[in-house]
This record gives sequence, structure tokens and C-alpha cells, in this order.
Amino acid sequence: MRLKTPIVKIRGIKVGGKNPIVIQSMTNTDTADAERTAKQCIELYEAGSELVRITVDSEDSAAAVKEIRRILDSKGYKDLPLIGDFHFIGHELLAKYTECARTLDKYRINPGNVGFGKSRDKNFEEFIKLAIKYDKPVRIGGNWGSLDQELLTKLMDKSPDEDIQIKTLVKSTLDSAKLAEKLGLKHDKIILSVKVSDVQELIKAHELLVKKMGKKPYALHLGLTEAGSGLQGVVSSSAALAILLQKGIGDTIRISLTPQNDEPRIREVQACKHLLQSLDLRRFQPKIVSCPGCGRTNNILFQKIVKEVNRYVDKNNLEPINIAIMGCIVNGPGESRHADIALHLPGKKEAGIVSVYVKGKFYKTLQGESITKEFIQIIEEKF
Amino acid sequence: MRLKTPIVKIRGIKVGGKNPIVIQSMTNTDTADAERTAKQCIELYEAGSELVRITVDSEDSAAAVKEIRRILDSKGYKDLPLIGDFHFIGHELLAKYTECARTLDKYRINPGNVGFGKSRDKNFEEFIKLAIKYDKPVRIGGNWGSLDQELLTKLMDKSPDEDIQIKTLVKSTLDSAKLAEKLGLKHDKIILSVKVSDVQELIKAHELLVKKMGKKPYALHLGLTEAGSGLQGVVSSSAALAILLQKGIGDTIRISLTPQNDEPRIREVQACKHLLQSLDLRRFQPKIVSCPGCGRTNNILFQKIVKEVNRYVDKNNLEPINIAIMGCIVNGPGESRHADIALHLPGKKEAGIVSVYVKGKFYKTLQGESITKEFIQIIEEKF
Repeated sequence: MRLKTPIVKIRGIKVGGKNPIVIQSMTNTDTADAERTAKQCIELYEAGSELVRITVDSEDSAAAVKEIRRILDSKGYKDLPLIGDFHFIGHELLAKYTECARTLDKYRINPGNVGFGKSRDKNFEEFIKLAIKYDKPVRIGGNWGSLDQELLTKLMDKSPDEDIQIKTLVKSTLDSAKLAEKLGLKHDKIILSVKVSDVQELIKAHELLVKKMGKKPYALHLGLTEAGSGLQGVVSSSAALAILLQKGIGDTIRISLTPQNDEPRIREVQACKHLLQSLDLRRFQPKIVSCPGCGRTNNILFQKIVKEVNRYVDKNNLEPINIAIMGCIVNGPGESRHADIALHLPGKKEAGIVSVYVKGKFYKTLQGESITKEFIQIIEEKF
Repeated sequence: MRLKTPIVKIRGIKVGGKNPIVIQSMTNTDTADAERTAKQCIELYEAGSELVRITVDSEDSAAAVKEIRRILDSKGYKDLPLIGDFHFIGHELLAKYTECARTLDKYRINPGNVGFGKSRDKNFEEFIKLAIKYDKPVRIGGNWGSLDQELLTKLMDKSPDEDIQIKTLVKSTLDSAKLAEKLGLKHDKIILSVKVSDVQELIKAHELLVKKMGKKPYALHLGLTEAGSGLQGVVSSSAALAILLQKGIGDTIRISLTPQNDEPRIREVQACKHLLQSLDLRRFQPKIVSCPGCGRTNNILFQKIVKEVNRYVDKNNLEPINIAIMGCIVNGPGESRHADIALHLPGKKEAGIVSVYVKGKFYKTLQGESITKEFIQIIEEKF
């Protein structure tokens, strides 16, 4: 059962309640470079990032926000929600650059990076008051990489235990949310996150957060922070978010991947789509079921078909049908009957003749050079 | 809490009980080609596949098993457990090729692919009796791609509902296990699996299986069958297995990936290692925490360091320490304090000077061309 969170509106996007889990991502261009940043915002959005965040870390960046919006609008991306990520000097930038404050669709503040001592509360208060003034939702995004050190020390003096960092993270985030509400920011203008880079600690943090929020939960943004690169990043993020989403926790997600070997930034958006689709939470494109291939099949032909059909699906905007591509008759016919359209190879003996199924029923056989081409034609005809 | 399963011994490897979750994989070479198959077995084993399965789908394959073992032994892989995957004619092959039956360390039988009507039980009985004769453990591996059609029809007549396929899969697998025990195969010689290609259905199948097994569960092999290729395969397998493992279900895992673009077969083994490590179930190599980079950092330098340190970790057999590599000061110092060794960039302004932390404390700064080289030297000195 999904946690009953309020609905937070961000430009045209609704986060929370019973709304579909929203995908988001963040640019890695210099925000002051409006041209490049707008270009990457569009790439991420086109790939499926329904919210796009940019860092606003300097006067130059804050000054560029208006121009980024202008470029987005001029290119037909009036619906693209633009979020500003602030640390340390957010209250100053938003006060000074009113166009930036007005233009952004949501602000993110990190309760561990607002200042120290008395200036901490003062800075936070200024930030929240600006959000209220411009009627913007705010993500209060805690991260164990930037814990409120004063609170940590205080809690450590009180009851030091192994979960002290998680407790500090949750308390700091929740206290900030309560303070924001006290200052006048509405409950449905707040999204919380408590990011940690370790899967089990992340789960622990969310279980504690859900418990502490009680009957009036906030909308939640989920993410495994600093997940790393390559396979590790994808596997650990998928594992962490799947476990939480399966418990009904999370209204919007980001998968944070360090790009490797010229991987495009949109890879993290694609990973989000696969994750939500695999959990039956969203449906974006056809699901391709394919076996790993083994000694029972002609793997050269099999892998070639899988690759070409995957490429076709990625490049075309298709109905979210189920496609099965199977290497042999062990699970081939059975898996084919579960799919909307399928083909299976016969196994290595009779290489080259494949059986096609449509809507669970045997349709025809194909052979020769143009198997994939003909299979794709059948998909186009039938769906 | 992990399910209390019996311990099944497979050559030197123990599956079940409180033993670490075991990683396995399967070759995709033609088993009759003993040379190539042995070579791939070694590659998978060296990558971390603690059990290696080969298909034994023909007389040629069965005849090659002895030679595969000889090559493995001669190359110093006497400990590598070799598993035979049988469908349709397993009972015949094991009866005729006694060296194959004797050589394999475990047999896998698919209860949906044993035959029909009376011959079904007869074939299954012959197979299990051979396992008892040669004292081999057996995986009774069901798959919804190869359901027992007679049982499916019977159950469908009795009470048709949307979960009928899952119910058939679980019942077929469990009935076969009970029959095997009745024939004399010991409880701790049996591993079960119920593979499905849909994440939510897979979870449903395991919940039903665990319920039906009651107080005397069998050791379990987990896998999302036909997971697909590329990101989809990795994401959906990680999601499915993480949810089940987190519930304490699963004693050995396989991630089935269709190799794409010359990806090595060992990629599925690497994914298993990352999954178990991310869930704190096993520890194989250093964990590298790295942020995704954003507009706050010099991404060219940052991604270069992440890539080189990842490459170093992959190529060297290091203690499983925590390494953090962070792009800026927002979460950099905090995440660095959580790690055994870490570095963070200052952010884009002062590009080129990075701070190194050892065991949570600031250690020194580095700059210039040789940052990564010097950082790796510090790792080598300190760990």
C-alpha cells in the first residue's frame, strides 16, 4: 500500500497522492552556460525526466536561470519544470535574483548546508519566506554527506548509538519541514528526501522517516546518493529503490549515476523508466523478454535479433506491448504464449527457422537473412 | 530474517542454511565443444560464479562432460562445481552416459519438461533414481515458460483465476520435490526454483512457495528468467532479487542477461556481486561511492578520476574498503568522513586541488596531472 502523501504541484506535474511515481534528473553542465544547460535539460526531459534540476550555486548561475527558461520556452518546452538546487547561499541568491526566484518551479534546500548557529535558522527562514512569496514548492533534501553537524553533536551527547547519523538525518529533515510549515509554507508545498549512499542505511532512514511522519506524511523524493558508476551504480540504485517502492514509499525518484566512458547523462533517466516499468508502477515502452541464451541455441543469430529488436523499440514510440525473444524450445513456446508478440528459435539443430507468435498463438515461421526485418513488420502491422 | 533452509552441498560449495548467498551462472557455448565450454566455465568461475551450469541437451553434450571436467582439473580448477541442465531427455542421457552422471556435481531438472501423461512420472522417477545412485543434489527448477500443461489444465478446470499460472508453477515444483523425496532423495539434496519473467509475478510466486513449503522449506535458487538485455535486464533483475533477498528468501542467485554489443558473459556474474554487496549480504571488493557530478564541479577531471579508480579496483584484489570520490564540497567532506579513503574536488572554482581523507580524517591535498596516480599510491600504502 502506497503511503498517503499530499499532492505537490510542480508546474504541470503532480507529485504524491495516487499520482504515478515521477522521474527526475539533474544536469551536469555549468548552469551559468545557459545554452548548454538548456540543451541538456531538453535531452533529459525528452528521455523521460519529468522534472529537471539545475544547480544554482553562484551569482552567474542565478543570473542565467531566466535565459535558460527563455531558451526552453522558445524551443517549445513550456511544460518542462525547472528546479533549482541551492546550498549555503540559496537565501541570498533568491533574494537578489528575483527573476531566478520567479522563474524556477521548485527550490531545493539542504538542511545540513544552510549555515551554523543562529544564522542557520535565519538563513533557512529567509529561504522559506521567499518560497512562500513566490508560491513555490520546496524540497527539503537531507543527505548524510552534509549532516547538520550541530544537531549530530547534540544527539551524540544524548544517546550515542550506531544509527546516530540516520537519526540526525531524519530529525534534521523533519525539524526543518516543521519549521517551514510554522513559517507558513503549506504541507502540500513540501517534498522531503533523506539520501544515503548505503542501501541498508537508506532503507533504515526511510523506515524511521515514515514512522516519525506518522499520520501526516510529506511527499517523498527517493534516491540512493552517490551510487557510483557502471554496473554498481545501476544495480545498487535499482535494489534500494525497488525495496522502498515495493513498500509503497516514494513519490518521485532519481537514480544518480556517475557517467562512465561517454555514457549519456540520460542513462539515469532510462534506468528510472526500466525500474518503474519492471515493478508495474509505470509503463513507458514495450517490455522485451529475452532469455540469456545458452548452449542450446545459435547465439550469434539469437543475440543479433535481440539487439535489433531492442534498437527498434528504443527508437520508435510504440504501444507498451510485451515482446518475447527466446533462444530455444525449452521455455520458448511457453514464454511466447505469455507475450503480445514473440519469436523463438528452435535450438541449435535447425538453425535459421524461427516461430512467430501473435497474441499467444502460433502465427508463422520465418527464416533467412531478413528474420528481424519481417518480425518488425509484423509488429508494425499488428500493433 | 532469512528463511531456515537446509544446507545442500555441491562439491565444495554449501547452499542454504546460514551460508552466504551463492552466485551462479551458465555457459552459452555448445557443450559438445569441450574446449570452449571449459574455457567459459573458467571465465565465469574466475569472475565469481561459484557454481557453473552447462546445458546437457544431446548425446554429444553428455559425452563431452567428462572431457570438460578433465580440462578443468588439468588447469587447476578441481574445486569448480559443474552442474548439468537437463530437459526432456535427461533420464536417458544420465542412464546412457554414466561418466557424465558421475562427473556432474548437481543435476537440474525442469518439472514442466519431463514428458507427458504416464511417461512424465516414469521419466522423472528414472532421473531422480539416477541422482540417488550417484549421490547428486538436484535442482527442481520450474519456469513459467515451460509449465506442466496437464497440471495447468487440471487447475484451470478446478478454479480458474488470474494467478493460475503462478499456482501451477508452484504446485508443479513442490509436487515434484515431494515425489523426489518419496523416491528416496534426501531433503538436503534438493534445491527449488520457480522462475518467472515478470517482477511482481516472481514475487507472488515466491510468497506462495514459501507459504506452501511451511516449516520445512527447501533451499532456494532465485532468478528472474528471461530478464532481457542491457539496462532493462540489469535493472529488473536487481529490483526483483533485491526485494526477495531483503525478505530473507534465496540461497543462491543467478542474474540472466542476454549479452549485448559484445558484452562479456561474466557481466551477469558481476551484476550478482554488486547486488549482494549492495545489500550487505556479501563483500567482494572495495565499494566506490561517487556522486553523479553536476554543475557544481569540473566533470572532466571528476569523471576521469572515478573511471581510473574504478579500473584500478576492478583489476586488483583489494580489501573490501569503502572509497569515496566526490565532485564538490556539498556532500564531499561528509561522505569522505564515512569512507576508509576518499577524495573530493573543491567545486568548479578552484579546479585541480583535491582533498584526500584517510579513515575519516583529512590527510592531504593533491593537484596536477598525477592526482589519480598519487591517490592510488595512498590506497596501496594504507590498505
